[in-house]
Amino acid sequence: MNFQIVRYMLGYVCYFQTAFLALPLMVSLLYGEHRVGWAYFGTMGLCAFLGILLTFRQPTDKRMYSKEGLVTVAFSWILLSMLGAVPFTISGEIPSYVDALFETVSGFTTTGSSILSDVGKMSYAGRFWRSFTHWVGGMGVLVFILAILPLKGGAFMNLMKAESPGPSVNKLVPKLRDTAIFLYSIYMGMTLLQIVLLLFAGMPLFDAITMTMGTAGTGGFAVRSDGLEGYTILQQGIIAVFMVLFGVNFNTYFLMVKGKFKQAFKSEEVRVYLGIIGISVAIITVSILPMFSNIFEALHHAFFQVGSIITTTGFATKDFNLWPPIARTVLMILVFIGACAGSTGGGIKVSRIIIMVKGIGKEVKTLTHPRSINKVRMDGRTVEHEVVRSVNVYLAIYILIFVGSLLIVTLDGKDLVTNFTSVAVTLNNIGPGLEVVGPMGNFSSFSNLSKLVLCFDMLAGRLELLPMLMLFVPSVWKRKKG
Amino acid sequence: MNFQIVRYMLGYVCYFQTAFLALPLMVSLLYGEHRVGWAYFGTMGLCAFLGILLTFRQPTDKRMYSKEGLVTVAFSWILLSMLGAVPFTISGEIPSYVDALFETVSGFTTTGSSILSDVGKMSYAGRFWRSFTHWVGGMGVLVFILAILPLKGGAFMNLMKAESPGPSVNKLVPKLRDTAIFLYSIYMGMTLLQIVLLLFAGMPLFDAITMTMGTAGTGGFAVRSDGLEGYTILQQGIIAVFMVLFGVNFNTYFLMVKGKFKQAFKSEEVRVYLGIIGISVAIITVSILPMFSNIFEALHHAFFQVGSIITTTGFATKDFNLWPPIARTVLMILVFIGACAGSTGGGIKVSRIIIMVKGIGKEVKTLTHPRSINKVRMDGRTVEHEVVRSVNVYLAIYILIFVGSLLIVTLDGKDLVTNFTSVAVTLNNIGPGLEVVGPMGNFSSFSNLSKLVLCFDMLAGRLELLPMLMLFVPSVWKRKKG
Repeated sequence: MNFQIVRYMLGYVCYFQTAFLALPLMVSLLYGEHRVGWAYFGTMGLCAFLGILLTFRQPTDKRMYSKEGLVTVAFSWILLSMLGAVPFTISGEIPSYVDALFETVSGFTTTGSSILSDVGKMSYAGRFWRSFTHWVGGMGVLVFILAILPLKGGAFMNLMKAESPGPSVNKLVPKLRDTAIFLYSIYMGMTLLQIVLLLFAGMPLFDAITMTMGTAGTGGFAVRSDGLEGYTILQQGIIAVFMVLFGVNFNTYFLMVKGKFKQAFKSEEVRVYLGIIGISVAIITVSILPMFSNIFEALHHAFFQVGSIITTTGFATKDFNLWPPIARTVLMILVFIGACAGSTGGGIKVSRIIIMVKGIGKEVKTLTHPRSINKVRMDGRTVEHEVVRSVNVYLAIYILIFVGSLLIVTLDGKDLVTNFTSVAVTLNNIGPGLEVVGPMGNFSSFSNLSKLVLCFDMLAGRLELLPMLMLFVPSVWKRKKG
Repeated sequence: MNFQIVRYMLGYVCYFQTAFLALPLMVSLLYGEHRVGWAYFGTMGLCAFLGILLTFRQPTDKRMYSKEGLVTVAFSWILLSMLGAVPFTISGEIPSYVDALFETVSGFTTTGSSILSDVGKMSYAGRFWRSFTHWVGGMGVLVFILAILPLKGGAFMNLMKAESPGPSVNKLVPKLRDTAIFLYSIYMGMTLLQIVLLLFAGMPLFDAITMTMGTAGTGGFAVRSDGLEGYTILQQGIIAVFMVLFGVNFNTYFLMVKGKFKQAFKSEEVRVYLGIIGISVAIITVSILPMFSNIFEALHHAFFQVGSIITTTGFATKDFNLWPPIARTVLMILVFIGACAGSTGGGIKVSRIIIMVKGIGKEVKTLTHPRSINKVRMDGRTVEHEVVRSVNVYLAIYILIFVGSLLIVTLDGKDLVTNFTSVAVTLNNIGPGLEVVGPMGNFSSFSNLSKLVLCFDMLAGRLELLPMLMLFVPSVWKRKKG
């Protein structure tokens, strides 16, 4: 392990955190929340100091292999969360540091699970910071840092692999740096568009900005005590459509910008993604019809909730915990499927499901036609054997982490549905689960141990499992070898 | 598809079924249950007639490739179940044919899920037949048929692969026929030993025989209204130990018979299997301690239940549905793990879990030491790439069938834990689940559609998924091609 380069990168992460914290500080000044403002100002000082400390000495060895890349990603996100939690605790808004950490990890990983029972009581700065962590977490920071830092190209690819959701990273343009800048531009552009639309629909500025950041990052933190119930149908509708849009593979937008509309609409992943949404909305609409006064209302809430869960955002317009079993089961299955690869959403990802199903088809074909050569194909191209294998390994790790977490969380003695869905919604970065952790409940009643385990799950889910797993490999902790 | 050979094999299955049914007929004569006896006699006639019809014409083409092997296995088990259900319905003991089918599929697949609310009311012949189906299903019938039928060797391996539990079939001795005969001998021997021990422990003959058949096949049907609660601690203990023994890979017994004790005790799968049992017993004992008067009692019931679930037998001495969440969660995880490959148990199998975990280890090693060559090894030998891939495909199919079944079963409107565990315990061939389908409940309240889906799951679980999946592949249904 080349620890120097990891240390150096972490220093830059601290600098970025300093810059990020300046925003809630500005919000606190705007709303005259001076006591809270000092908390953000103090944390900025801490971050800046740490940054100087870590970057003071240039690394002599600038090599970064996949091992270093994965470890850097894991540490960066842990550090971002640990520092981001500080202002919550020193401002007294979330007195327990473990609770604050849970909330911040939930923010950066775009999960949206909360330990707060009433978010409406929080300061504007605090609520802004929560939503802002979603927006930052949606696209990731390390790729951004590397886009402006002059490091070797190999490192870039490794970090991007680890931080981008999905089984494989496509180079859209020959230079990865240009790819990154392009992706961030789309992200910014769509964010602005949603804010403008929400303002036109009559939403107050603070809500429009924060709700958009929660949508863009597919996060799920709300800023009002009643969640999204208080917004108009139009406002909810805009959010629903943008949730679905942010769950689409960003490659599609790249192709559309380049004018290749035909190719863009041919993407198998996007088609399957939209197909799953359509079928789920249909099933849920029928099942919840008796609970609403007309079909339009049922359709609206079904579409909103399906979009919210499959993109792993986790916003709720209704307490779906009270919906019939078939609706809740469909939502629970969507929890695991997740959004498209290369989007800001979490979950297992639609493309992984496609590769999995096609892998089965290939096996069956080999059995029925033993002498034919069968390959898994997607979008007309052969899927590399490497990718198929990594999807299988991903599933195996996923199951292991799921079962291990479930066992520890169960120690708290809660009911089985609460335990199961708690792990499911954190590992898939959704937000609310069922029963105790349903849309109207929260995660505060868990023990500190369980909260930390769920923090691990949120990070593992956001970072595609492997980086967090690396922290448990002994050879990673050896200096300068391999 | 070469349908001729499939038809011919099915004919032999009918002959075997005729012979099998002679046993409950004898039991009915012994206990003077004449009305029930006629039902078994009539069904024997039906089976013999069908057998003659199907084997009347010798197949001109005796080739049997993997496709034919898989389809034969699937059809044989479906036919066995459909014919085996007939006496229940015509004797009036289970009036609904779908219910009778569920009960028989549950028997042959060694699941042990029941639609009966009080088994004690059933005739001796009926209860004997239920338990006997477990014993037949434990080792499978097709391998036995092939051991005495003169067919080509290729067919043999294909059928054995499909019918034997686990990721790969080891040739114990050069000739597969000898391997099969050897395995059946061990099975018979252990069955006799358990019957004798139970008789010594004071169990009545009828109970000793039927309970042993349920244990040997890791089935789980009981013959008394109160399940196993009425037996003495010693009798329960004997059953518990034999459950665990029947869950061990039979290769181990082969090695022991050959005097290779060192090699037998080195088996990684058996070690992990016993390790999981030990840890689970420890956790559950601690968690249920307050419910029992002393530690021995808690230990006894914990060991019994862990053995019962991990081997997928499904016997219950206590209503574990009332145990604390941690105990129920551990049991629920054991449901998925299952017993060793090459045993009579179901589930995913310990060896698949080992290969899965080692696959992760290999991936991590490749990441940390990119230039090293890493292979998955087990018991000192390299696991073929073929096997690793088939384990991954197995998991993928497993998840798909699970989710699909869950969706359909959910339509009945039951609670989430009932739905989830119903699918889990049938797909893994356990027997009782939690809540409505807990040890003191039963499956009778499901709709016919759900019952048929669960029948499919039981068959898919017992036959290692692929054979049942083949029935949905269009190319399988084409005559004489590929």
